[in-house]
Formats: sequence, structure tokens, C-alpha cells
Amino acid sequence: MKKFEEKTIHTENIYNGNVVKLQVDDVSLPDGKTSKRELIKHTGAVGIIPITNDNKIVFVEQYRKPLEKSLVEIPAGKLEEGEDPSVTALRELEEETGYTAGTPRFITSFYTSPGFADEIMYLYIADDLETVENAAAGDDDEFIERIELTLDEAKQYVADKQIHDAKTNYAILYLDTLERM
Amino acid sequence: MKKFEEKTIHTENIYNGNVVKLQVDDVSLPDGKTSKRELIKHTGAVGIIPITNDNKIVFVEQYRKPLEKSLVEIPAGKLEEGEDPSVTALRELEEETGYTAGTPRFITSFYTSPGFADEIMYLYIADDLETVENAAAGDDDEFIERIELTLDEAKQYVADKQIHDAKTNYAILYLDTLERM
Repeated sequence: MKKFEEKTIHTENIYNGNVVKLQVDDVSLPDGKTSKRELIKHTGAVGIIPITNDNKIVFVEQYRKPLEKSLVEIPAGKLEEGEDPSVTALRELEEETGYTAGTPRFITSFYTSPGFADEIMYLYIADDLETVENAAAGDDDEFIERIELTLDEAKQYVADKQIHDAKTNYAILYLDTLERM
Repeated sequence: MKKFEEKTIHTENIYNGNVVKLQVDDVSLPDGKTSKRELIKHTGAVGIIPITNDNKIVFVEQYRKPLEKSLVEIPAGKLEEGEDPSVTALRELEEETGYTAGTPRFITSFYTSPGFADEIMYLYIADDLETVENAAAGDDDEFIERIELTLDEAKQYVADKQIHDAKTNYAILYLDTLERM
């Protein structure tokens, strides 16, 4: 779908970081005029909804520097180059919670902020959780606490804005929908 | 909630754009070590689910330069400084679709990408749509087409990934949940 395509005239690379790249493109608009677009490049991310054998959802709490507060979220992480998202899902699950799981089932994917970023989020659900002995450690600058909640408890966390991000709010609504079916 | 707080040691401002700002913070971690955080600053955004009198949902199709393709999304836009999100919702609705609506009802809010951005999305629903004569125009670099779909049609757009962003996927799931109640 290329409707209203904006052709790139010039790209200025502003920043090349570990998490994001920033570039500013001069574009040609459908009416022939020009404009600038600020573009954040990201490798994509994966979130996983882990369900324990006693039907609790496994979350992680971590500090989110952009917000200057901690949030409770489903386990998630960045896609490595060329990695299948279901592999990322199990890796992040182990690193962040110490659990492994059965085969993750794909739920949906979505762009998080298509106006300025190309980040895509792949969302999975998995059960048959088992504790991993000597679980792989995550990045050494990640401080994470595991929290296991019932769906009702999680909905209260949403109401209290302790759960307050797109993938996790979507996950809670998704589980709530399943329960009504 | 300040659990695992990361204190700022130094902030480097990299870019100050119209849509995003980028800064890189040196932070002090809970174990006393230091790390860098890449932070995108954004003023926040509002999305609105407009429901017509014949129970269709109003979407807009526009080109998303970060993705190099067009998406079908609910009407949305950036919060102006100090603006109430419900005001933003009605303004964007008029600019992007030519409709006005009754009082928008708040559904939820969420951070779109809390790992690297502070953007928050406020989500509203509104009905009692009326066509505005001489509707306010949007930004002159926005090319937008209005599309009205039933919920079933919209679910097909999700399946086809023509609808493929966090706020709109959430909106469709939300409407689907309402219909099951």
C-alpha cells in the first residue's frame, strides 16, 4: 500500500545508538511540495504472555527511564537481527523470569508509533511454564522483579496505572476477551 | 513507583525536532554501576474511535514514512502543550475526517514504547457524529483519506495488516469485546 507515497529526497543520519537510530528525511509530498520527517529506526520487539499452571500471568517490574518510574509489563525484549520472534520470546522469558515455556503461540503484531518510529511489536502467549535451573542472565544493566498475578489482579494494576503500556494493556484486554468467550 | 530507580548523572541533548527530541542520559544503576539510556521525548498523542449513526467506525488512511507504506488507523494526533486530550481528540477528528462528535468518552491510556520513549496515547470513543461545514484543515503536509468500516470489515483489515498499529489494534479488540458483552 503506497497511497500518498512520500518519496525520499535526502536522508540525514542524526544518531546511531544501541536501541534507536534517528534520521531526518526530506520528502516529496503527493502535491509536489516538500516536508521533513523525523524517523526513529528500531529493530523490533517481542512481548510474551506467560501463563502458569495455576493460571496466573507472569509480569516483570522494571524502571523505565523515559518515564522516570517503574512499570509492570509482560516480559519483552528487542529482536536480534534475523531472529525469529518466537525465539526472542522464549529467550526474554528465560532471562527476565527464569521460566521456560512450551511453544509460544502468535497472537498479533502492531507498530507501536507509526507516526515517527518503525518499531513493530510481536505478541505471543505461552503456557507449560517450567523453572529453568541456571537460567540465562539478561543484560547486566537490567534490574527486574518477577510478579505473578491473576487476571483480576492484573486488571486492578491497569486501573492503578502500574500496568500502563501498549503491549501489556493489549495483553490484558486479550485475556479478558478470551475469558468471556 | 521508583523501584530500581536510575538516577541521571548527565544528559546529552542530541536532537530537538518538531515531533521528537532525542537525548542520551548517563545513569547510575541500583548496583552503583553506570549505563546509558537513549530517550525519545514526545508530547503525547490522542486517538479517537468515531462511531457513525449507522454503527460504522471511521478510520483514516495515510502514508507512514517510517514504514514506507500507508496504514488505516483511527484518527489521532499530537497533544498540544497543556491541551486536554479530549479537546485534541475532537480537533483531530474534525481535521482528519470532517466530522464533529458528541463528548468523547475516555477508554484507556498507555505508553507506546516505554523502553525508549515517553509518548503516551490517550484513547477515546465518540458517537453522534455530524459533518462539519468548512471543517478545519489539518497540517498542509498531511494527506489523508477517510474510510468507514463495519467492525467485521475492520477485523479483516487487521487480518490483512492494513490496520497494524497499537492504538487501532487495541481499538478493534475493545469494540469486539463490547460486542460480546
